[in-house]
Amino acid sequence: MPVPGPGYSITVRVEAPPSASAAGDLTGAAGRAGAVITAFDVVESHSDRIVVDITANAHSADHAEEITAALEELPGVNVRKVSDRTFLIHLGGKIEIASKVQLRNRDDLSRAYTPGVARISQAIAKNPADARRLTIKRNTVAVVTDGSAVLGLGNIGPAAALPVMEGKAALFKKFAGVDAWPVCLDTQDTEEIIRTVQLIAPVYGGINLEDIAAPRCFEIEARLRELLDIPVFHDDQHGTAIVVVGALRNALRVVGKNLADCKIVVCGAGAAGSAIIRLLLQKGPGDILAVDVNGIVHPDRDDLDPNLTWLAQNTNRNLVSGKVTDAMVDADVFIGVSAPNLFGADAVATMAKDAIVFALANPDPEIDPLEAQKHAAVVATGRSDYPNQINNVLAFPGVFRGLLDAQARGITDTMLLAAADAIADVVDGDRINASFIVPSVFDSAVAPAVAEAVARAAAP
Amino acid sequence: MPVPGPGYSITVRVEAPPSASAAGDLTGAAGRAGAVITAFDVVESHSDRIVVDITANAHSADHAEEITAALEELPGVNVRKVSDRTFLIHLGGKIEIASKVQLRNRDDLSRAYTPGVARISQAIAKNPADARRLTIKRNTVAVVTDGSAVLGLGNIGPAAALPVMEGKAALFKKFAGVDAWPVCLDTQDTEEIIRTVQLIAPVYGGINLEDIAAPRCFEIEARLRELLDIPVFHDDQHGTAIVVVGALRNALRVVGKNLADCKIVVCGAGAAGSAIIRLLLQKGPGDILAVDVNGIVHPDRDDLDPNLTWLAQNTNRNLVSGKVTDAMVDADVFIGVSAPNLFGADAVATMAKDAIVFALANPDPEIDPLEAQKHAAVVATGRSDYPNQINNVLAFPGVFRGLLDAQARGITDTMLLAAADAIADVVDGDRINASFIVPSVFDSAVAPAVAEAVARAAAP
Repeated sequence: MPVPGPGYSITVRVEAPPSASAAGDLTGAAGRAGAVITAFDVVESHSDRIVVDITANAHSADHAEEITAALEELPGVNVRKVSDRTFLIHLGGKIEIASKVQLRNRDDLSRAYTPGVARISQAIAKNPADARRLTIKRNTVAVVTDGSAVLGLGNIGPAAALPVMEGKAALFKKFAGVDAWPVCLDTQDTEEIIRTVQLIAPVYGGINLEDIAAPRCFEIEARLRELLDIPVFHDDQHGTAIVVVGALRNALRVVGKNLADCKIVVCGAGAAGSAIIRLLLQKGPGDILAVDVNGIVHPDRDDLDPNLTWLAQNTNRNLVSGKVTDAMVDADVFIGVSAPNLFGADAVATMAKDAIVFALANPDPEIDPLEAQKHAAVVATGRSDYPNQINNVLAFPGVFRGLLDAQARGITDTMLLAAADAIADVVDGDRINASFIVPSVFDSAVAPAVAEAVARAAAP
Repeated sequence: MPVPGPGYSITVRVEAPPSASAAGDLTGAAGRAGAVITAFDVVESHSDRIVVDITANAHSADHAEEITAALEELPGVNVRKVSDRTFLIHLGGKIEIASKVQLRNRDDLSRAYTPGVARISQAIAKNPADARRLTIKRNTVAVVTDGSAVLGLGNIGPAAALPVMEGKAALFKKFAGVDAWPVCLDTQDTEEIIRTVQLIAPVYGGINLEDIAAPRCFEIEARLRELLDIPVFHDDQHGTAIVVVGALRNALRVVGKNLADCKIVVCGAGAAGSAIIRLLLQKGPGDILAVDVNGIVHPDRDDLDPNLTWLAQNTNRNLVSGKVTDAMVDADVFIGVSAPNLFGADAVATMAKDAIVFALANPDPEIDPLEAQKHAAVVATGRSDYPNQINNVLAFPGVFRGLLDAQARGITDTMLLAAADAIADVVDGDRINASFIVPSVFDSAVAPAVAEAVARAAAP
């Protein structure tokens, strides 16, 4: 059963009799219904009744209704209103524009707008490089999506993707001071996406592609990198790959193995899996087996698209074939970016000694981490309620901070690897252990460390 | 000679001898060079020297250099640094993104981003209208340009246009709390502009087209109004037309004439001129003569594009032809949105009694307002250093505030006329006179009045 969490936090306003047992009755009923109560506030008190706000975490919308019903059933209790706190904070959106200049009087207006601004425009027309000095281009990133692969929700379209992109923009600002703006495109045509991003690019110092389905995302990214003079980063590919490679470095330190000796299984050959493999290959692993829904990627398979063909040519040294559980036998590392509940503890038991399992499918991993732990030495997931959360928030804010600071015109694997090392290095030798291979997403040292590493790698 | 203004404000840091006459010597020299000194600050004081910041308005870059040279010539004076205050406030751009949500801890993250945000996305996927409630769409406007007709600078391209669009965004926020974002497109192809705006539209509650050259702007606006379910406004057309129509209503009150009896000359048949004519026609004027570089627009001219053809069919009741000065004979109103210094006071003298002259060409009007005043009863310009400034800032912030508040899906002439009346009404009967036909751009009553009028007109 899922655990109640703040993603389903509700506030129920109830009227209750002013008895001494009211608080106990209300919290008791909510608790028996499975609510995790996080606040209890009396907002009105009268001789004949009290009005109370009960704030609680639920695990689903149905569960929230069950909790409300349990309160309503109490004698003399009347539910006035149920507020969903997640919806409340989304009202009107999560980001806004702020002016950095004062506009108090005519002088301010004459400098920030006409006639003064004409001189700034003329300076940029004369020397286009000045745009990175005299406009927002210096600090802006477009968060571009077509809404085709949003979170675990799939192809929900550009409007429904907007809350996610706004959240991303809020994170960019919070963790790295980057001004990111959502660009949710009303097309899923590869050529139109490429052309549109090219046309809007003058305003931006970088492009963050987000939640665009594979294999379309590969071509969009590759072509835009050719066309633009600003860095193009696909977070689902490169952000995930950076954090996985950084976490794996620390996991290998915990078990005392070298990457060059390791057999690695990467399950999932979409955006994330392919990017993880491409980045890992830069570090000289023993061998990598890529696995997709049709089994281990192998040159003789007849269902290979260009991406899978490349993977087949660059992995699977011994040309093995089979299912994911076949691949896992004697493997040192399993990295899953695929689907929930693919195998059980018995499959992990077939891995090499001191196995490392990164089960990153969201929201439900390839294997329950508690099951994996029975036979693996280090386990990581994408979940926040288990140690070792592999979260892209560790990478993208710092990466773009570094790219913007360096006024980078492109992005290379060297920069991605520098970011991975920077994340791993934040967990210093004294603190590293099987339950702590990556820093917390709230560790304020991460983004500056990543930014510095990326900027250094980007320097000419 | 142009007047020194804050658009060319410089701060000169000088070292000078610590004599009693130092301040007088420095300000005297700058003043003789034509500088208008706005601040004098001693920033360091030593036994052998003082360091002073002299801030002054100049009228051009060359003039700023002359002022600096005049200071440098003083005995014992050494110029350390000249800062251009207009460039200084543009460093790094004029707007930024701010997060409206707290992201202090895991609970915040779970609500604003994953996993909580997934429920918001699902709600919008199920009911697309919820995007106007649960995302920034409720309050966002795209300020779209192709950089083809920027201020008086012409076709300077999208990067050089960005400082102007940023300034516009800052004004949107300052005057009406609207979150506007610059969209500077790297194309001047009509079809590509239309398609790109259509593709980025999901994020926005309105589109403000800006500084796009005529006649392309007419087709872009008309086609986007067909394609989109959010209002499309071309500020150079509709913003200007609103303020002109509002100002004209008050000017006619000053001279005691009715629009139905007036002969009106509109000089300039581009974006602004055409929109002014189209909006004025809604109010039943006596007659309108449209004039472009080839003279009075007339059905027999063989150089008419679709826009001019429409104008020829809907103006010039008596089928007159000739030059702008021919058109002005016996005219009650002249409205110029064309080119500098087209005629002198003698042409104004041929107009009807109590003539109204709006000479709006920027930065230099069709006629020097002091010359026009010799024979006209009411004179207005686009300049801030003369009374009756016709400035779009009076219109666009309030117009979009009203459109967004009403969740308008389109924009009509009724809304534009309501905005014009609201601007005119801010100047109440006690204050109206020949030098005060429009409110100040800093009058905080304007935007709310315009917003309310537009929202009322937009209500179903």
